[in-house]
Amino acid sequence: MRATMIYGAGDVRVEDVSHPTLIHATDAIVRIVRACVCGSDLHGYNARTAADPAKAMGHEFIGIVEEIGSDVHKIKVGDFVIAPFAYADNTCEFCREGLQTSCIHGGFWGNGDVGGGQAEAVRSPFADGTLVVVPGPVDPELYPSFLALTDVYGTGYHAALKAQVSAATTVTVIGDGAVGLMAVLSAKRLGAERIILMGRHQVRTDLGITFGATDVVAERGEEGIARVLELTNGAGTHTVLEAVGYRDAYDMAVGVVRAGGVISRVGVPQYDDAPVGRGSLFGRNITLTGGPAPVRSYIEHLLPDVLSGVVNPGLVFDQTVSLENVADGYRAMADRTALKVIVQP
Amino acid sequence: MRATMIYGAGDVRVEDVSHPTLIHATDAIVRIVRACVCGSDLHGYNARTAADPAKAMGHEFIGIVEEIGSDVHKIKVGDFVIAPFAYADNTCEFCREGLQTSCIHGGFWGNGDVGGGQAEAVRSPFADGTLVVVPGPVDPELYPSFLALTDVYGTGYHAALKAQVSAATTVTVIGDGAVGLMAVLSAKRLGAERIILMGRHQVRTDLGITFGATDVVAERGEEGIARVLELTNGAGTHTVLEAVGYRDAYDMAVGVVRAGGVISRVGVPQYDDAPVGRGSLFGRNITLTGGPAPVRSYIEHLLPDVLSGVVNPGLVFDQTVSLENVADGYRAMADRTALKVIVQP
Repeated sequence: MRATMIYGAGDVRVEDVSHPTLIHATDAIVRIVRACVCGSDLHGYNARTAADPAKAMGHEFIGIVEEIGSDVHKIKVGDFVIAPFAYADNTCEFCREGLQTSCIHGGFWGNGDVGGGQAEAVRSPFADGTLVVVPGPVDPELYPSFLALTDVYGTGYHAALKAQVSAATTVTVIGDGAVGLMAVLSAKRLGAERIILMGRHQVRTDLGITFGATDVVAERGEEGIARVLELTNGAGTHTVLEAVGYRDAYDMAVGVVRAGGVISRVGVPQYDDAPVGRGSLFGRNITLTGGPAPVRSYIEHLLPDVLSGVVNPGLVFDQTVSLENVADGYRAMADRTALKVIVQP
Repeated sequence: MRATMIYGAGDVRVEDVSHPTLIHATDAIVRIVRACVCGSDLHGYNARTAADPAKAMGHEFIGIVEEIGSDVHKIKVGDFVIAPFAYADNTCEFCREGLQTSCIHGGFWGNGDVGGGQAEAVRSPFADGTLVVVPGPVDPELYPSFLALTDVYGTGYHAALKAQVSAATTVTVIGDGAVGLMAVLSAKRLGAERIILMGRHQVRTDLGITFGATDVVAERGEEGIARVLELTNGAGTHTVLEAVGYRDAYDMAVGVVRAGGVISRVGVPQYDDAPVGRGSLFGRNITLTGGPAPVRSYIEHLLPDVLSGVVNPGLVFDQTVSLENVADGYRAMADRTALKVIVQP
């Protein structure tokens, strides 16, 4: 079958690899119906060197179950499934606490002997724990929203949930990428009435307004901070959902968060150390939270309103490429000519 | 009257100063009945230079109202009052959210034209907002517990509350000083059944056991982390209450916190930058919270069980000095021959 591999920076190739086979009794083989390219895929795309080992790509996909192991009981052949970006047994002590991204036996697609989702098929470990079945019949119009549930929607929701967004909290969302826009949608769904979106790509911030943003701040750095403070009587917002991952986004978050407020990060930090002392977090009782979203926890909760059409997170996709042309999708996202790209095997 | 001033490191003096007078209509003059020396007083005691301007000391005190301004309506002359370590109007938007340490008009004792509490009397700004009346008659046996309510008990409680300690959470408390011990007591009161106290002064950790600690870990650094992980099947505890403020305590907190858990800091950080990236906080969804405790919010809530004798936070005091001998109190705490010292004017 055909599958996406990355080599050095910018070097994405579609190659012939063996069709996956069952290894463990709890596995399933999933034929990929659609996959997509993630903002986090671009970290490697931008920064890898030729010395890095080749890696299978893709951690966001939906598909149809082709084959199951002898110890798979909930998932059936023929099921249409949504895969969260991390696989998990969904039974360990962390999974039971709703933190499937810390599953003792879990992991991430495209590592070790587990393939990636930008391919024709993939072996899913812990099929019963990992995969969520979409009750049929399945409307192809909803594929983009199902893809959003594999990662970006659950990730934006995680940001808002960890920040304890409610009708009582004002919100700043930093970043107008797909995750930032999903954070806007999630904040709106959790009742927020004031959502300031920091982003400078008007097509994206316009979509943010569709999702519920009430204000858009295009400025960045000190100017961006000043603008948010101006919009909030100098106090900042109760919650800041940081969907970028760079250090300047952290600094902006510290600058716009209200005393007693929460910075919730879901952009994977591209830095290690940052200010946490008296002048940044401690003195004003700022809470810093977030991390890799346990999307598996959220899919079942968020799916009904997707199925009924109450929300349309799939709007974040603005381009589709064939699997053979997946490299074009990476390039479009890296060049920001696409917001988020669907890959069709 | 006599009041405590600090000059250079280790240079604490009791001096003649003017008796405080009302300045604003919302002020009260409080005659100090007891004050105490705080662990945070020692930061200046250890680190000041002779070039630093002299500063009035003491932010923990109880006393009797001597005089009130024309716009003071709740507090009456003769009231026995507990003062939180920060004064606040208790009406601004932050105070209404329970964050009196970020009061727009508030501040800290011993700054500007507001004196310190290690003195014979002090002027309290915003008397109605700041001071909490103890319903009389007042039992002198309870003075130590009232003093604990001015800072260390509320601070330990803040750590536990911000960490969302409950019967469902395991707890590590880092630090066996007065605040750490009050964090133990608070965690116990919030229902925690497993409380690991990290500290190496047996008199103090014994008191910690009295307050509810179930395990004591005397080791520090990597050894301390290993010991806590050993006690928790390798997972760490859901919550970590950090009551020290040094960078190595932060690193220990990161080492012993469970994935998905909370580090709650109430020791004033003596550092600015610390690891917050993928390998420390983000990757395991660790929440970092805490800050200066809005003790004013907590005194009324915690007072009834002090009055009824259900809890005795005053046990953290193990020495009393006269105001004239306050320097001995600082020295005893700096030398760790005293856990916490009462000052009697």
